Amino acid sequence: MEEDILHHLDLGTKTHNLPAVFGDIKLRNTNTFMFYIQFVCVGGSPNRMRAFAQFMHKQLGLAGNGEDLADICAGMDRYTMYRAGPVLSISHGMGIPSISVMLHELIKLLHHAKCRDVTIIRIGTSGGLGIKPGTVVITDTAVDSSFKPRFEQVVLDDVVVQSTELDKDLAKELLACSKEISDFPALISHTMCAYDFYEAAVVCVALLDRLEGDQIRAPHEVLWEYQQWPQCLIAAFIRKHLRLCSPAGNKLFSTN
Amino acid sequence: MEEDILHHLDLGTKTHNLPAVFGDIKLRNTNTFMFYIQFVCVGGSPNRMRAFAQFMHKQLGLAGNGEDLADICAGMDRYTMYRAGPVLSISHGMGIPSISVMLHELIKLLHHAKCRDVTIIRIGTSGGLGIKPGTVVITDTAVDSSFKPRFEQVVLDDVVVQSTELDKDLAKELLACSKEISDFPALISHTMCAYDFYEAAVVCVALLDRLEGDQIRAPHEVLWEYQQWPQCLIAAFIRKHLRLCSPAGNKLFSTN
Repeated sequence: MEEDILHHLDLGTKTHNLPAVFGDIKLRNTNTFMFYIQFVCVGGSPNRMRAFAQFMHKQLGLAGNGEDLADICAGMDRYTMYRAGPVLSISHGMGIPSISVMLHELIKLLHHAKCRDVTIIRIGTSGGLGIKPGTVVITDTAVDSSFKPRFEQVVLDDVVVQSTELDKDLAKELLACSKEISDFPALISHTMCAYDFYEAAVVCVALLDRLEGDQIRAPHEVLWEYQQWPQCLIAAFIRKHLRLCSPAGNKLFSTN
Repeated sequence: MEEDILHHLDLGTKTHNLPAVFGDIKLRNTNTFMFYIQFVCVGGSPNRMRAFAQFMHKQLGLAGNGEDLADICAGMDRYTMYRAGPVLSISHGMGIPSISVMLHELIKLLHHAKCRDVTIIRIGTSGGLGIKPGTVVITDTAVDSSFKPRFEQVVLDDVVVQSTELDKDLAKELLACSKEISDFPALISHTMCAYDFYEAAVVCVALLDRLEGDQIRAPHEVLWEYQQWPQCLIAAFIRKHLRLCSPAGNKLFSTN
């Protein structure tokens, strides 16, 4: 293909130098560069994903002001995308079709930008069944609206069924990570998702127990705090992972 | 229910006086008031739906500055909602789940606000099959991903099937309206929608002919102009409809 236009992201192979946009970034007060995108974190809300990018900017000790990160997709109002070093933070709106459009263009984007072995994690919010509001759920398997671990798509009039099991080792690593933080309850469990799944990981915080009703009664401050918890967990995981992967083996980041 | 919290719209029956928020609005330089919401127009893009509300504000000759309309849902970043007299303009994001969450809370909202006999119209963009880019398609029937005129939902482990036929008289009225404007091609046809439908009307402009590829090649200016066309049609329809419904029978609005 001569040109690939990623319409909903307002990016393209002719209009943007994608390997440069997603290439190396310098750490604060060092001569260390972090190359390319290694983690993509996605979530529904644009504000939350900007806040997460700012949070990661600080957590990773990157150079420059993390408060005024530019929206890479500012030319379109469908999604927002922020970069904090090797981490991309993207809002995907609500529901499978919205997420699917983004993932379709994201995967092409990562290919064009020459990013390899990227870990994709959804950090979001969800309802809960029989768990306390505020519990961080690390998904091992996504189930559809019939509680079956499958994702069905109609492709050229055929129903194509795909597995919805996530990376079990990644889920265990995230749970272990959450125990080291211990600021909030976390567990591994199933997540119901009408028509979608992720081959990475999914980490959501439950806003309510649907066995007790469908009204979200917690005040905004509490809901906002709940939303921080998956972010804290993922920040800890990414810091840990980058330290382990550091070629020089030295500690690049503080744990705070 | 003691209190109904419309979480994703950031509105509620205890925190907001909904009949007042969606109640009467004064026309510019007149003593004529327009009561309550009569039309709800929805579309994917927040910017487009703000522009539509500003456009309707001028078209209806409403008092005040239409340029700085406030976002009624500003407290949450999920949807945007603007009011222009008897018209609500709401962004719904992409795909069925995102639209469904909005419609669920919108219908409760209209009930609490005591709005009755409201016409709901989606004005959006879509791909096209065998039609010229820029064609405005007025949907008569929505079909699912198997080209069947049905909408299937799993409710408590049962598959519930609903009809996806839209209001045929409304579609004909919109087509007649488009002939009076004649600035752009319009036709009545089917629209494929994976998992959603509207019982009102759907008016979309095709951005491309998918029989010729999946890249949207038209420049931004052309795409922006295409997006105006469904808006022009709906503005003409609403102006016409309000004039017909005016109790005094006098001409309230200019046609420009």
